[in-house]
Amino acid sequence: MDISKRGQEIQPSPIRKLKPYADKAIERGIHVYFINIGQPDIPTPQPILDAIRGYDEKVLSYGPAQGLLELRQAIADYFTSYNIPLTSENVIITIGGSEAIHFSFCVVADPGDEIIIPEPFYTNYNGFASFANVKIVPLTLRIEDGFRLPPKEEIESRITSKTRAILLCSPNNPTGTVYTPEELERVISIVEEHDLFLIGDEVYKEFVYEGNTHKSILEYEEVKDRVIVVDSISKRFSSCGARVGAVVTRNEELYQSLLKFAQARLCPPSVEQKAALAAYRMGLDYFQPVREEYEKRRDILFEGLKDIPGIVIHKPQGAFYIIVRLPIKDAEHFVKWMLTDFFLDKKTVMVAPAQGFYCSPGKGKDEVRIAYVLKEEDLRQAIDVFKEGLNKYMSVFS
Amino acid sequence: MDISKRGQEIQPSPIRKLKPYADKAIERGIHVYFINIGQPDIPTPQPILDAIRGYDEKVLSYGPAQGLLELRQAIADYFTSYNIPLTSENVIITIGGSEAIHFSFCVVADPGDEIIIPEPFYTNYNGFASFANVKIVPLTLRIEDGFRLPPKEEIESRITSKTRAILLCSPNNPTGTVYTPEELERVISIVEEHDLFLIGDEVYKEFVYEGNTHKSILEYEEVKDRVIVVDSISKRFSSCGARVGAVVTRNEELYQSLLKFAQARLCPPSVEQKAALAAYRMGLDYFQPVREEYEKRRDILFEGLKDIPGIVIHKPQGAFYIIVRLPIKDAEHFVKWMLTDFFLDKKTVMVAPAQGFYCSPGKGKDEVRIAYVLKEEDLRQAIDVFKEGLNKYMSVFS
Repeated sequence: MDISKRGQEIQPSPIRKLKPYADKAIERGIHVYFINIGQPDIPTPQPILDAIRGYDEKVLSYGPAQGLLELRQAIADYFTSYNIPLTSENVIITIGGSEAIHFSFCVVADPGDEIIIPEPFYTNYNGFASFANVKIVPLTLRIEDGFRLPPKEEIESRITSKTRAILLCSPNNPTGTVYTPEELERVISIVEEHDLFLIGDEVYKEFVYEGNTHKSILEYEEVKDRVIVVDSISKRFSSCGARVGAVVTRNEELYQSLLKFAQARLCPPSVEQKAALAAYRMGLDYFQPVREEYEKRRDILFEGLKDIPGIVIHKPQGAFYIIVRLPIKDAEHFVKWMLTDFFLDKKTVMVAPAQGFYCSPGKGKDEVRIAYVLKEEDLRQAIDVFKEGLNKYMSVFS
Repeated sequence: MDISKRGQEIQPSPIRKLKPYADKAIERGIHVYFINIGQPDIPTPQPILDAIRGYDEKVLSYGPAQGLLELRQAIADYFTSYNIPLTSENVIITIGGSEAIHFSFCVVADPGDEIIIPEPFYTNYNGFASFANVKIVPLTLRIEDGFRLPPKEEIESRITSKTRAILLCSPNNPTGTVYTPEELERVISIVEEHDLFLIGDEVYKEFVYEGNTHKSILEYEEVKDRVIVVDSISKRFSSCGARVGAVVTRNEELYQSLLKFAQARLCPPSVEQKAALAAYRMGLDYFQPVREEYEKRRDILFEGLKDIPGIVIHKPQGAFYIIVRLPIKDAEHFVKWMLTDFFLDKKTVMVAPAQGFYCSPGKGKDEVRIAYVLKEEDLRQAIDVFKEGLNKYMSVFS
């Protein structure tokens, strides 16, 4: 009576596994700046909170498996306002972007099939690969290149007879890289030539800086039947706990199959769908000040870190993460040490060891991911504490 | 570029697939009594609605992957009050009972492995078997026997080298059967002798009639490491749209693996977890009037149907479903016809064809499942309309 192989092999969350050390630091009276996870401190928009507080049904009943029609329509309209004409028939509401990823993996791949994903990548892709018994084939990117995509031949070298899809996350978690149209087109030509699906994780769509905008793979008509996009309100509307996302496709056959997966789990949460509807009704103007806030934080973080001797860092173009290579051997040891052995004015910092974002063994051991999810004052203090801690760590362990 | 085999083969919901015919009937001005799905009309308890309306966080943030500690503790206390001593360390909050089923399948079985389930069974087990590429091996029960479990040898005859678990749903959806301690012990001796896991779907725990009580597989110490129980607030507190369930185990290794699956999808919805907490704080007294209401409805439905000539029916002991064999050839055709061709005083009825609850080909073709989820007056009318429709159908199609 052993548990399943997938149950044994599924990766524990590398972001959450050090959490107990943080909890213990807090118990000792230390203030911990959490810049390890993508939990923004941006207030949830008032219309979302009002919709929750105004919930007025007598029976909290099942909704449709594909989600509330009004919300599907609102999301279609949202894409349409970005010049991506969609209808509600292209949208299935999911339980967070998480479920959209899971559905996407299941609908394109059977057990043993492969999906190519540039690494470092969002660590929970691993979890859903375990659920679905799909193999993730990493395409390793280099921090020195700012995590840009490699030449076509290098991407193609990862394709086997079992490859079913390529997944692109842009703006990228954990690197902050935003792929250029040229990079997207490189991958599009590959999926066309090798007859593959293309999964796009575009949940950070609005968070692109310096006046640039995000280009969606949904904009490419030539691959409209190959494309599945993973979407979510978690970061867009600072509503991570709502668990409302969407999977978007214009391939009717894919849609019908996704719908059957959706039917198996009955429906997404009813209250938060109404809340999400209220959020989309705010319109695109909502994003401007939020984007400016994140851009300011990005600049503070980048400027605060860039002159650390021996560091490798690039300025992220989007999302709210940065990967930093540190002049140390074992980032996980450092992160733990910061929680167990270090504090400055009763404060310390938790960042995420980057190794968990790679699936190639040994990669990312000297890198961390930092999320700029705290307001200016907190972020500045966190940077000071981080730098002081790193200095101390290097003096002790080198 | 084909979609995956599992994406092609996953069963469409047999309950939801006839819904468009009901929608069209409504468009034509017909009132449809929905007794096809387990969506009760019992009002959601006020403390749940109050908790939703009183949500007072500024940021709707991620919660713990395993769910809110207070809710895990409340569920442990709930079980303990039934003389099943549990701690919060035995409970992981899931996104509905649905996710608890999915997690359970993944943690006991790898692709190609088998789980034995008595049929007819809750149709969405099929969906999660497709997600997880697990094979459900049906143990066919007979309506003439009131869907009791067969002798030990017959159950054992379904075991192969790939069998990983047996799943028992009691009180049962769709049959309403409540397994006796003797039946449970028969299966317990089998899982012990054949070294299998035992999954219990006990979400209808409170809905057992005539003063009887539900016996949980968690009560058997000898299999405490083999048992996983699927739980949910959907029916218990008439909160189907909340999507709050739980997976319960006392096997520490299983728990740790389940936790990793939970981490992959980040967390259950935050607002409804607070609402669920308020529900559990009502205590067990809440259930008495609800149970009486369902028992009354069961009696009305059973008395209303039992004298139909040619019918095979047994009185359910629990849950709020009944399977009825009708003197017709094709129940799906009948259900559809009731929506497209029949009405009485501008009213018709939707029931669920039972074939979708069987996975053995051809089984259940002349059976329907009826859910007694409507209040007395509506249920009585629905029964009258149903009987009139059946009469008419038989006169047209025999």
